[in-house]
Amino acid sequence: MKDVQSQPDHRNIAIDKVGVKNIRHPVTVLDRANGTQQTVANINMYVDLPHLYKGTHMSRFIEVLSEHSNNINLRNIPGILEEMKKRLDAACAHIEVEFPYFIKKAAPVSSAQGLMEYNVAFRGSVNGEGLDLVVEMRVPVTTLCPCSREISEHGAHNQRGMVKLAVRFKRFFWIEDLIQLVEESASSDVFSLLKREDEKYVTERAYEHPMFVEDVVREVARKLEDDPNIVWFSVDSENFESIHNHSAYAFIERDKRSAQA
Amino acid sequence: MKDVQSQPDHRNIAIDKVGVKNIRHPVTVLDRANGTQQTVANINMYVDLPHLYKGTHMSRFIEVLSEHSNNINLRNIPGILEEMKKRLDAACAHIEVEFPYFIKKAAPVSSAQGLMEYNVAFRGSVNGEGLDLVVEMRVPVTTLCPCSREISEHGAHNQRGMVKLAVRFKRFFWIEDLIQLVEESASSDVFSLLKREDEKYVTERAYEHPMFVEDVVREVARKLEDDPNIVWFSVDSENFESIHNHSAYAFIERDKRSAQA
Amino acid sequence: MKDVQSQPDHRNIAIDKVGVKNIRHPVTVLDRANGTQQTVANINMYVDLPHLYKGTHMSRFIEVLSEHSNNINLRNIPGILEEMKKRLDAACAHIEVEFPYFIKKAAPVSSAQGLMEYNVAFRGSVNGEGLDLVVEMRVPVTTLCPCSREISEHGAHNQRGMVKLAVRFKRFFWIEDLIQLVEESASSDVFSLLKREDEKYVTERAYEHPMFVEDVVREVARKLEDDPNIVWFSVDSENFESIHNHSAYAFIERDKRSAQA
Amino acid sequence: MKDVQSQPDHRNIAIDKVGVKNIRHPVTVLDRANGTQQTVANINMYVDLPHLYKGTHMSRFIEVLSEHSNNINLRNIPGILEEMKKRLDAACAHIEVEFPYFIKKAAPVSSAQGLMEYNVAFRGSVNGEGLDLVVEMRVPVTTLCPCSREISEHGAHNQRGMVKLAVRFKRFFWIEDLIQLVEESASSDVFSLLKREDEKYVTERAYEHPMFVEDVVREVARKLEDDPNIVWFSVDSENFESIHNHSAYAFIERDKRSAQA
Repeated sequence: MKDVQSQPDHRNIAIDKVGVKNIRHPVTVLDRANGTQQTVANINMYVDLPHLYKGTHMSRFIEVLSEHSNNINLRNIPGILEEMKKRLDAACAHIEVEFPYFIKKAAPVSSAQGLMEYNVAFRGSVNGEGLDLVVEMRVPVTTLCPCSREISEHGAHNQRGMVKLAVRFKRFFWIEDLIQLVEESASSDVFSLLKREDEKYVTERAYEHPMFVEDVVREVARKLEDDPNIVWFSVDSENFESIHNHSAYAFIERDKRSAQA
Repeated sequence: MKDVQSQPDHRNIAIDKVGVKNIRHPVTVLDRANGTQQTVANINMYVDLPHLYKGTHMSRFIEVLSEHSNNINLRNIPGILEEMKKRLDAACAHIEVEFPYFIKKAAPVSSAQGLMEYNVAFRGSVNGEGLDLVVEMRVPVTTLCPCSREISEHGAHNQRGMVKLAVRFKRFFWIEDLIQLVEESASSDVFSLLKREDEKYVTERAYEHPMFVEDVVREVARKLEDDPNIVWFSVDSENFESIHNHSAYAFIERDKRSAQA
Repeated sequence: MKDVQSQPDHRNIAIDKVGVKNIRHPVTVLDRANGTQQTVANINMYVDLPHLYKGTHMSRFIEVLSEHSNNINLRNIPGILEEMKKRLDAACAHIEVEFPYFIKKAAPVSSAQGLMEYNVAFRGSVNGEGLDLVVEMRVPVTTLCPCSREISEHGAHNQRGMVKLAVRFKRFFWIEDLIQLVEESASSDVFSLLKREDEKYVTERAYEHPMFVEDVVREVARKLEDDPNIVWFSVDSENFESIHNHSAYAFIERDKRSAQA
Repeated sequence: MKDVQSQPDHRNIAIDKVGVKNIRHPVTVLDRANGTQQTVANINMYVDLPHLYKGTHMSRFIEVLSEHSNNINLRNIPGILEEMKKRLDAACAHIEVEFPYFIKKAAPVSSAQGLMEYNVAFRGSVNGEGLDLVVEMRVPVTTLCPCSREISEHGAHNQRGMVKLAVRFKRFFWIEDLIQLVEESASSDVFSLLKREDEKYVTERAYEHPMFVEDVVREVARKLEDDPNIVWFSVDSENFESIHNHSAYAFIERDKRSAQA
């Protein structure tokens, strides 16, 4: 049968990324507490295509994924990217793996345990200039408005917020540590299971630590600027305001590599 | 050209609903303050198909929609359904029209004005037994937890909630009235624009009116049970909890027609 | 500390459902090929609340979930519902568990293997009248338009469709069997991995089996009407039309219990 | 009342973007055929915040939006951004406005008319270096697989695809022109209303113009490279494959400004 994809293309236009998008697949990832964790990922895989070929071979992406899904982590993504380059005969390769990640977390007073869900993504690329690897995580938090607290007789509006942190780094790290760093940068962290004594604790803690979205991203930024393992980061915080039907939002990006030049 | 859809089908299976789904279309709806309002709807249109026909004629739904989109309201949906029956040669017809609806709303102290968005749906059906028409609306509110307030030294966790109300009714009514009824059944209503004096007001109002999701649906139910124009309703309330990463939820459905029997 | 939820409520309004919604949690489900499968579910859990209590105890739902998440299947959902009733002191209990389910599937000619994702949901309720258990699955398929094929010189428009099947049943069954029944009711089934010889096969198979959305739901209905284990079903098919920006849709529901009366 | 937002912050961290996100608001945009078009937008508005201020004043964004929503277009976004800078006392301002845009389109043979929906976004920023304005549009198309056609006895798998095109440009242009350019770069364009003679036409046209996702982005790129008004573009194409449960994807980005240097 004719290999249409391998036929020449005469438009002289190289393609930056071509591949498969929105594949759902079970994956096994590293877990600091338990060694490994099985979860379900949403995956995109792309390579570049030189101007002289008509198309790429889509089924080969799925073959690479099948062979590696039982072990997806920061240490072996470079190897997966190299294999994509080889199997697809490409100069560049890109992979994005997004998955819910669960951590057992004890309530602050009763120590009752529940599983918290965080969304994590690995985004890796290789090209002629080397490897680029970004780890991203979404961490739900509580924020309590400093203005509302200051001007009101009693109470203060508060709400769930979602903090998205993305980092580039020098050496392997545990996402558990960065999740904790974010949770400690809000009015309170969020739990899946709270007994009454815990609810009292988190209510009072949030009231005693009022924070704007601006404060949350600044706290995260302050800590990451001091972390020598982090060479670049972006952090945003979105508050699902309890008094509005829209969100409050703040964003900071810092590239410590260019700053050091 | 052959009309494949009109060919006979020998499986002897009638189809309950067949038609077009997820059409986006501009529509003009009634607006109490301004006469009419232009918005963008998501629309589903179906008819039944007797067992002896192979298929329906999908393009006719779009033709009916085009002719009526400049005037979609509770009073003329029965006529649209009759026209669908006629054009599609069907015994039953169904239409669902969902759209964002905007109401100008003044902040409680400053009277600064902003537009609030509510999601509204009309769901109409005709069959041999007559017309069935349901109006549904989603109203964002603030809820403040009575338990958290009671047990904490200061403050109380609060959050945005979404109340979904669906009603069957006797006579035309303004959705503005039911939206207001829902907003008055929560710890506070929600605004798009609040100045500092307004923020103080809504913070204190919510603190003074603590409500569980259970309280919100009960308040709405209590008022609708007393409204003679409403013959059936369902109301649910979903709190996007500020201290959890999941929702609290409550639901009540009442059919006053069967109760009266 | 005061138990606000257990305080009396004087509005005299019972609540149909109250509980927790949109919890994400890892679960282990049965898998015909491998014994069990680990996946990630979206879960809702509700009970009823008698008119004389102010609120329910939300944390108890999470406790029940934690104890049972390592084994969620058709056989033990009744036990989970009974435990919810007991722990929450309720007369009715409801649970909804939705999860991606993966089945290894061989390409039709090359036999190359890939994992197919299907969405599955268990919806269980107990009340005074007993247990109600519905299993729902979403199965992607290919449909090729009979009208387009009939009237065109060559080719025929085709597209991905999604079939949603829900069933009530007498005895335990494997979802693998109903998924296969749906896949055999379309122009072709869908695969995650196809080599060139497979692509030729599925293209030709679809062309030789043209089907409207109407045909798909009728084929599924015809087979389920003959299955004595199925006492009720609903099936819908949504075609993401390749020639339109909206969907074609068909729906059939049959209650064989009432028909037998 | 104390202005908490205007208080000094001592962490010495400037914030790149702070503001409001996911506001839904009616807007009036330009329409080549009808002068103007009323639609409903999703809007984000941000400014920067110097390191010495604690917070921004969120309500002012809503005020600016209210004053300008009746006229949002490429020509006046720079003025809106300047007003945001002034009212928020900021050095940088960003606005994102996304909305469904409807164009009346005649079927290719019958000339029957229907409204097609396209998603359009304006993304504007001003900072010390000047204005940056990006226009983005999502255009649904049909793609028919060249490989499937080549190797199969009859037929070829085809599907709906979504092309996303973003451009930077020198002078005002009509989005209608770029939408048409994209539609002419696929196997066929997509319609909301087709009679039988039209369905024959689009089926045959697609069969005669087989295109991979790679071909679609190359065709768009080839035309935009020749358009002197476009100084930068990115185009991606996502095929919702009819034979898979995932998408095929291709992406090209070109900066003609750097190329000319």
